[in-house]
Amino acid sequence: MPSVTLADLRAAAETLAGVAHRTPVLTSAQLNTRAGSTVFLKCENFQRVGAFKFRGAYNAIAAQAGTQDGRPIVTFSSGNHGQGVALACRLLGRQAHVVMPRPVNDLKRAAVVGYGATVHEAADREEGERLLDDLLTRTPGVHVHAFNDPLVIAGQGTAMLEFLSTVPELDVVLAPIGGGGLLSGACIVAHGVKPGLHLYACEPAGALDAVHSVRENRVVPMPNPATIADGLRSSVGDVTLPILREHLHGFFVVEEGEIVEAMRFAFERLKIVIEPSSAVALAPVLRREPALRDKRVGVLITGGNVDLSVFFSSFR
Amino acid sequence: MPSVTLADLRAAAETLAGVAHRTPVLTSAQLNTRAGSTVFLKCENFQRVGAFKFRGAYNAIAAQAGTQDGRPIVTFSSGNHGQGVALACRLLGRQAHVVMPRPVNDLKRAAVVGYGATVHEAADREEGERLLDDLLTRTPGVHVHAFNDPLVIAGQGTAMLEFLSTVPELDVVLAPIGGGGLLSGACIVAHGVKPGLHLYACEPAGALDAVHSVRENRVVPMPNPATIADGLRSSVGDVTLPILREHLHGFFVVEEGEIVEAMRFAFERLKIVIEPSSAVALAPVLRREPALRDKRVGVLITGGNVDLSVFFSSFR
Repeated sequence: MPSVTLADLRAAAETLAGVAHRTPVLTSAQLNTRAGSTVFLKCENFQRVGAFKFRGAYNAIAAQAGTQDGRPIVTFSSGNHGQGVALACRLLGRQAHVVMPRPVNDLKRAAVVGYGATVHEAADREEGERLLDDLLTRTPGVHVHAFNDPLVIAGQGTAMLEFLSTVPELDVVLAPIGGGGLLSGACIVAHGVKPGLHLYACEPAGALDAVHSVRENRVVPMPNPATIADGLRSSVGDVTLPILREHLHGFFVVEEGEIVEAMRFAFERLKIVIEPSSAVALAPVLRREPALRDKRVGVLITGGNVDLSVFFSSFR
Repeated sequence: MPSVTLADLRAAAETLAGVAHRTPVLTSAQLNTRAGSTVFLKCENFQRVGAFKFRGAYNAIAAQAGTQDGRPIVTFSSGNHGQGVALACRLLGRQAHVVMPRPVNDLKRAAVVGYGATVHEAADREEGERLLDDLLTRTPGVHVHAFNDPLVIAGQGTAMLEFLSTVPELDVVLAPIGGGGLLSGACIVAHGVKPGLHLYACEPAGALDAVHSVRENRVVPMPNPATIADGLRSSVGDVTLPILREHLHGFFVVEEGEIVEAMRFAFERLKIVIEPSSAVALAPVLRREPALRDKRVGVLITGGNVDLSVFFSSFR
């Protein structure tokens, strides 16, 4: 399996310098009181395309310059990776095709189209995979996987590099887990830069594939994930799984009600818009997980792409 | 009339160092495209109590140490100043009484109570003024006015000091106008630090007292202001009016629909929660005011205290 090293991460940071935003880290006295710990939020909801996914997509596509340059980029994504690919392609002068499985997040689809990419809607994830294969067969397209790709993982991990350079004293970092690209990158960084740091993956109870995959040491897919966290419905891959198994300290499982409550807390108290997937990593802090008490806790706020109507209806 | 100087502003900045947050300045490529200018948002919605008002309240109350120390603080406020007073009093060991006129913003009232202050609800602004007088007669309370006070103005202006130190190249700055405390402080800073900078006050069409007051050079109250921007219903005062008349470059008048649209843009595109009063200063940027085109435009995002139910209902 191709491995990812700290050197890959540092190279990705150079590729992204001046292209991706260096996102702010926010703190809140109210949040600390509620959490019983000192919390730092790395706000990738303020990243380009509204999510960390821009980092990995740009890093992977920029690396193709001179080799597969000019061939269209094809990907499968519930939305944020699709947006990242679409914007990266626009910036790098490439064509992009994004296969999106239903239910499609309207805000994310509109953004993908707005960046000039072609959207191919699929009835579900299975049909989406077939559509992707078909596109790769019929066209000279190059596949950029949403997470199971060393260059994508290296790009995502730059968020963690920045986080630790801004707040070197972190004891623990929480991130949501979908395919595990961001957390794999974060694992490589933590292992190389701050080995004592504990990394936790946060997963919705309705899409528990990562917990089972890590426990059984094989990719255990979740056929019909049931969660509002639309960014976390995918399963881990064979590149991310071994990294996660080696470096993750543990998991926090989060209920749907906690996701909505964390979105509300972010809105009312922190004044930031976070999408349900991000709320999954804030929820364990809000419920005062014993392992986090009195610690310096970092949370990777992965994105803010929640549709206003979905946001409204989640509170009904 | 007591005047406010740049030295007062710098003293306020020292008083607030380590107590108020140095709030981040956000930028967005999407916003720049929409605006046709380069926009910088000074995010006081991330300030303590969720609004810049903490700055002025703390500065005014801290200045009383040793003189009127120990006497309760009494104020009249639609909410954010009340929160600022309540938190400042808690930090400085003082009692606080906040008179709030109906309709009361539930989120703001809950926060005032949460900081340990006593809330006195009034049927309307007139009854509120009577309640305030009554409290000042019956108790040894000291009045800290929401804006018509040199120490409060000096505190609020520190937001502008920070803004210009972060982004010295600003050509224009927009801020919403209620009583004019923030804009008065900003005027003093701009005049002293960057005389060529143009400052614009943004006012809802349904609460146009500042436009008329500046034009007629007298305080022209607006008896029944009709706007969703609950922080902008007060009229300017005799301390703020002469400063505004001397230094303001102009006004932008904003319709109610534009306020809601700017809140939505902030939510969907910028991923930040801004209250209607802040949206009033973002709206002229979104409608591409000719005076702002191709300029480096700063917007003082004054607060983020919008009740979730008010936020929802504003989109219906």
